[in-house]
Amino acid sequence: MHFSPLIDQLMDSLRCLPGVGPKTAQRMALHLLERDRVGAERLAQAMLKAVELVGHCEKCRNLSESPICRLCESSHRDESLLCVVEMPADVLAIEQTGSYRGHYFVLMGHLSPIEGIGPEQLGIAQLLSRVRNSAVEEIIIATNPTVEGEATAHYIVEQMRALPVKVSRIAHGVPLGGELEYVDGGTLVHALSGRRSLR
Amino acid sequence: MHFSPLIDQLMDSLRCLPGVGPKTAQRMALHLLERDRVGAERLAQAMLKAVELVGHCEKCRNLSESPICRLCESSHRDESLLCVVEMPADVLAIEQTGSYRGHYFVLMGHLSPIEGIGPEQLGIAQLLSRVRNSAVEEIIIATNPTVEGEATAHYIVEQMRALPVKVSRIAHGVPLGGELEYVDGGTLVHALSGRRSLR
Ligand SMILES: [Zn+2]
Ligand SMILES: [Zn+2]
Repeated sequence: MHFSPLIDQLMDSLRCLPGVGPKTAQRMALHLLERDRVGAERLAQAMLKAVELVGHCEKCRNLSESPICRLCESSHRDESLLCVVEMPADVLAIEQTGSYRGHYFVLMGHLSPIEGIGPEQLGIAQLLSRVRNSAVEEIIIATNPTVEGEATAHYIVEQMRALPVKVSRIAHGVPLGGELEYVDGGTLVHALSGRRSLR
Repeated sequence: MHFSPLIDQLMDSLRCLPGVGPKTAQRMALHLLERDRVGAERLAQAMLKAVELVGHCEKCRNLSESPICRLCESSHRDESLLCVVEMPADVLAIEQTGSYRGHYFVLMGHLSPIEGIGPEQLGIAQLLSRVRNSAVEEIIIATNPTVEGEATAHYIVEQMRALPVKVSRIAHGVPLGGELEYVDGGTLVHALSGRRSLR
């Protein structure tokens, strides 16, 4: 549409948001300009600040604006447990259940040779050195129960073979082919408590 | 959730977008930070620019970044037709049908005593003086076929009583109680061509 260059540009830019098509982008742009310019300005500033300052935690690789994230810095977490997940959203999903008090390691993806994502991109060496040099006694692998997530879990188990730690996989209460992020809290609690040792 | 202050703030700010709840805001924030920081920055800049520079056209009251909007400035439009709509989205919907070549007047709302929206807020005096001092021969009232839209249409017809112009209302091909913005193009074309004279 040819509305006005700046409004067209705003509608166009809004489409970088997941799930936002042309019709939704139009509704969002007009809503902001007609009814919530204060909200739009606050959102823009929050975006710029986050993009500039949010990086990754040096310890767990999760998104964080400080070198070491809040979870890693907390003294109230169980140092003997380390849960390995694919993405930051998985940390949020598990934290929201309130039933896990250990630490995390965020791969920021899964093995995918086609996309050029190997052990290096997932920080596997960092994970191994962390396990070697810390009080971790059990690794809970909570990658997604998808083909790629299972392959990634399998690879990590292989790499851990020589290390003196327990390695477990969350129970498949999570439906096969599903994404951890979209699973309800109850199922996640069940999957965590029903985890089985992999050796 | 307590993720990290800047990410929490971003998730929170995203909820000013219509239809965005906490779960969607979370997915959007993580998507932007993990996968599309360039898009996030462009969106933030587009938002700031639009909020700063987009005002209202002096002639038709539609959203515009120039004092007179593109539609009002165009020499290819029919000066004898003036379509009165509630919102900018209605102009977009009618323009997208490609079947109307006249001008517009955007009320930016409808009469609503409860919300304190009267003739002054809708620019009715401006509309009347525009009709008096221009080549307009027919006013097409295309407010929504809702209770408030009908009341607004009725009020405008009353105000036009003394003026030597034809006044018409778009046909009710548009379902009663519906919003013009969400009606398909075919129905809108029908409603425009089937408009009936109100006197
Ligand atoms: Zn961390
Ligand atoms: Zn205009």
